[in-house]
Parts: sequence; C-alpha cells; structure tokens
Amino acid sequence: MTDITRILVLGGCRSGKSRFAKQTADNMAMDKKIYLATCVPTDREMKTRVKRHQDDRGPDWATIEEPIRIHETIDRACTQAKVILVDCLTLWISNLLFQGKDEAGIMSAVDLLEDALNRATCPVVLVSNEVGYGIVPENSLARQFRDMAGLVNQRVARAVDKVIVSMAGIPVQIKPESGNGQGLGKEI
Amino acid sequence: MTDITRILVLGGCRSGKSRFAKQTADNMAMDKKIYLATCVPTDREMKTRVKRHQDDRGPDWATIEEPIRIHETIDRACTQAKVILVDCLTLWISNLLFQGKDEAGIMSAVDLLEDALNRATCPVVLVSNEVGYGIVPENSLARQFRDMAGLVNQRVARAVDKVIVSMAGIPVQIKPESGNGQGLGKEI
Amino acid sequence: MTDITRILVLGGCRSGKSRFAKQTADNMAMDKKIYLATCVPTDREMKTRVKRHQDDRGPDWATIEEPIRIHETIDRACTQAKVILVDCLTLWISNLLFQGKDEAGIMSAVDLLEDALNRATCPVVLVSNEVGYGIVPENSLARQFRDMAGLVNQRVARAVDKVIVSMAGIPVQIKPESGNGQGLGKEI
Repeated sequence: MTDITRILVLGGCRSGKSRFAKQTADNMAMDKKIYLATCVPTDREMKTRVKRHQDDRGPDWATIEEPIRIHETIDRACTQAKVILVDCLTLWISNLLFQGKDEAGIMSAVDLLEDALNRATCPVVLVSNEVGYGIVPENSLARQFRDMAGLVNQRVARAVDKVIVSMAGIPVQIKPESGNGQGLGKEI
Repeated sequence: MTDITRILVLGGCRSGKSRFAKQTADNMAMDKKIYLATCVPTDREMKTRVKRHQDDRGPDWATIEEPIRIHETIDRACTQAKVILVDCLTLWISNLLFQGKDEAGIMSAVDLLEDALNRATCPVVLVSNEVGYGIVPENSLARQFRDMAGLVNQRVARAVDKVIVSMAGIPVQIKPESGNGQGLGKEI
Repeated sequence: MTDITRILVLGGCRSGKSRFAKQTADNMAMDKKIYLATCVPTDREMKTRVKRHQDDRGPDWATIEEPIRIHETIDRACTQAKVILVDCLTLWISNLLFQGKDEAGIMSAVDLLEDALNRATCPVVLVSNEVGYGIVPENSLARQFRDMAGLVNQRVARAVDKVIVSMAGIPVQIKPESGNGQGLGKEI
C-alpha cells in the first residue's frame, strides 16, 4: 500500500453517489482529472444520462470510455492524471457478464483491478451501486448479477482506503471506522 | 433557516420509520399534532394499514389527507399545530407521477415543499422510503418512480436539519454528522 | 437479560453478513460451535451454496438443520454449545410462510424465538437479510414476505444486545449506539 488514496463510493440508485465521488475528486485536483466511464450507452435514456453527466463535469475533466479492461485504463491514465474517477463498477460487472464471464472470470477481473489500484500513482475514486437490499429477483440472470455486484463490492471495499455510503445525498463513511471505539465500520 | 426543527426519517419497507417518526413528534408536543397522510387508500390492504396507523396514533392527533398539495397543507397546519408529521413522501411522489407529472414537474413540487419547510412555524417530521437499493426494475415506470424517489430524498435531506435512517427499527442519524471528526454523515 | 451476548447481523445479498457472523462466533469460542441452518436445500444452486458454506466453516463446527422450530433447537443446543450461529432468519420466515403461517403465526414464532434468546446460556449470533430497500414487488406473496422480514428484523433487533449491518463486507454497528452523543443507533 502506498499513501495514494483509493476511495469506494457506494450507494443506491439516485443516492447522489456519482455527484459525491466527483466532488471528492474535484477537491483532490484542479485539473488533469480523468473520468473512466464503463458505460457504453445503448439507448436514448442512457445517452441522455451520460451526456448530462459529461456536461456537469466541466472542461477540466477528460473522459475515457472503457467497458471491460479498466485495470489497463487505470494504469495508463495514472501517467497523466492527478485523479481518476471510475464510474461505475456495477456497469462494468454487467459488461463482464454480457461478455460471457462467469464468477471465476469476474473474480479474475477484480484481481487485475485490485493490482491496478495497488500500483496506482494517483488517487482513484470508484463508484458502485448497492443492489442487494431488495427481495430476491425472480429471474436467474438478475440473481447472478446481484451476487456478482455484492461480491465485487466486498472485494473492492477491502482493497481501498476509504469507503463511503451515500444515502439520500449524505455521505456516510464506513471505512476506516470512526473513532468512537464501538466498532462502527471496523473491518474484520 | 429558523430554529424550527425539520427532520427526515428514511427507511426501507417495515423498517420502523413511521413509528420512529411518530414517537419523535410525540416527544415534541403533547397535543395539537397533525398527521398529514399522503395516502389515498384504494384497496383493502391499504385501507387496513391506514386504519391501523390511525388507531395507533391516538386521540391527540388530527389527520389531514392530502395526496398532492402538501406544501399548502403544511402552511395551513402550521397556524394551529405544534408539530406536523408528513407520512409519506414516497406515496406523494407516486401520486404526482399518476397525475402525469414528469421529472421537471416533480422537482417544481419539491421546490414548493422546500419553501413550505423553510417558512414552517412548527417542527415538521417527514417520512420517506428508500427504494433504490435493489436491482434495476424491468419496467420503465418503476425505474422512473425509483429515480424520482431518490432525487426527492436527496432534495429533502438537504433541506432539513436532521436525517435519520431507520434500520430494523433502530434509528441511525446521518445528518448532522456525528462528532467523531471522520466525516460520518458530513454533507458536501 | 443475562450477560450472554446475542448479536443480530443484518445485510443485503452478498454483503458479507454470514462471513462476519461466522468470524464473530469464531472469536467467541474455539470449539463446540453449532451452526443452525434454516435452509433446506431444494435445488442445485442452493445445495452448492450450502455445501460451500459447510466446507468454509471447518471441523470445529457442528451443523443442525432446522427450518421451522429454531427456538427448540436453540434451547437444546445451549446445553452442549459454546456459541450458536443461526443462519438465517430470512429463510426461516420464508419456511414459515410456505407452511401457511400468516402474520399472527409468524409473530407467535418470533415470541418463541425471543424467549429462547432470553434464556440462552451461550452466545447466539443471528443472521438476517435486509430485503425492504427496493421498490414494492408486484406480486402479493413477495410483498407479504418483505413485510414479514422487516417486522421480524425489528423484533429481533430489539431483543438482542448488538446489531451489526454488513455493507460491502464492512460491519457497521448500529446497536448499541456509538458514544458520540448524537443519537447514532439510539434505540427508542
């Protein structure tokens, strides 16, 4: 572990997680900020959302779209960036599944991501959705996706220095644990 | 901002959020408590639930049913109430959607609500569901509802003085941040 | 209340809750650990999962499968165990529903569980899923299940000494409240 900060921002749908992650990155650097988008927009709803997010970020951000090999993009981006924002891991998992990857394949991809995070020479902020707090989905693919999302979140949460859960736009830090001595956010 | 307390109580289904909100209001006033119900019961399941909640509240509570224009009800109720409990914002959003409101229309309604909260002359406790921590719903209306619910929760969370998340009946305060200096519940 | 610790570990799907619960139990005793499985595997996916969990636990654990009458199993297990791990309450609720129990029947079952927890002579760690943070399910049985899961989690959370929510593998203690004086995890 270097002293480079790696931060995971978790949250539900429309919980403000991307906005918080972006502001966190903006607080870390004035320029040379790279937005690593895992989203490959395929319908109008997604395209509108992607475009709005790009406009929101402003001109001091460069965008790289990479749906699958994000570890390589992180490696390369580190040579020129002051901070990298990966948004988001949930779509990355979805992309891996659509590519035909099974659990083992996805865990291998997380190994590569973890290595890239460990050797990163600039701060990396990663955004991910929490999708496992509803009832069990009826269709098997949705269950598999939900399982993978949960496992990947656990792996990445363990690998990073800081984990924030965004709830209704309010960032709640769960790692490292707060200093109250009662195990809040204490990792095992 | 006045020194009138505005509190948002968030939680999942059957998380104890309404009970906690009601007890919070009960701790604030002995009488002149107004329950602003956004629910217009349309089937037996809902009617039973509404009736049970009314019985639970007791005689020191008056109930006003208002599915849409809750900002006006808050304005009027303030002239006579010691505390107002709005239960819940999720059904209010649902009502706005069924009325044909789009995102812009719902955000305008939140503007009006925010104004009413800012000029409220008695404490207001608002209840809302967290619905965005499951997998993406397959049907488009459900996705829209989920998006709106998340956005409204963010707006209201920013507008109020205190945000509590109820988890398995245990209230967890996420705003204002706790005093541990580590950013728990720190708003950006 | 005795000084025997009862702990509820809550979490979403693949949130690391079972692993955390198991490690908590492992920290409490070196041997004589009983795993009370409420799961009766009925398809290959479940059987694989059950088998993997058994292998993970190792030889210092004994497994008892009991889908319904877990209060009796806790009573009996206490005479020989140093710690009991109940995994999980969500499947137990599901089993009770499939047996034809309604809300009253399930609440009676929780009464019996609560009594067993109160007279337990060894620590008991219970695992349960949080399933109420997604949108309202379309089918009525899923809604009923979700309601029951939420109510049971509230009841058990009130009965135990400690409640931990596992988020992305990070345990966050919400009961007893942390010592920051701001009501985090303060029970009402």
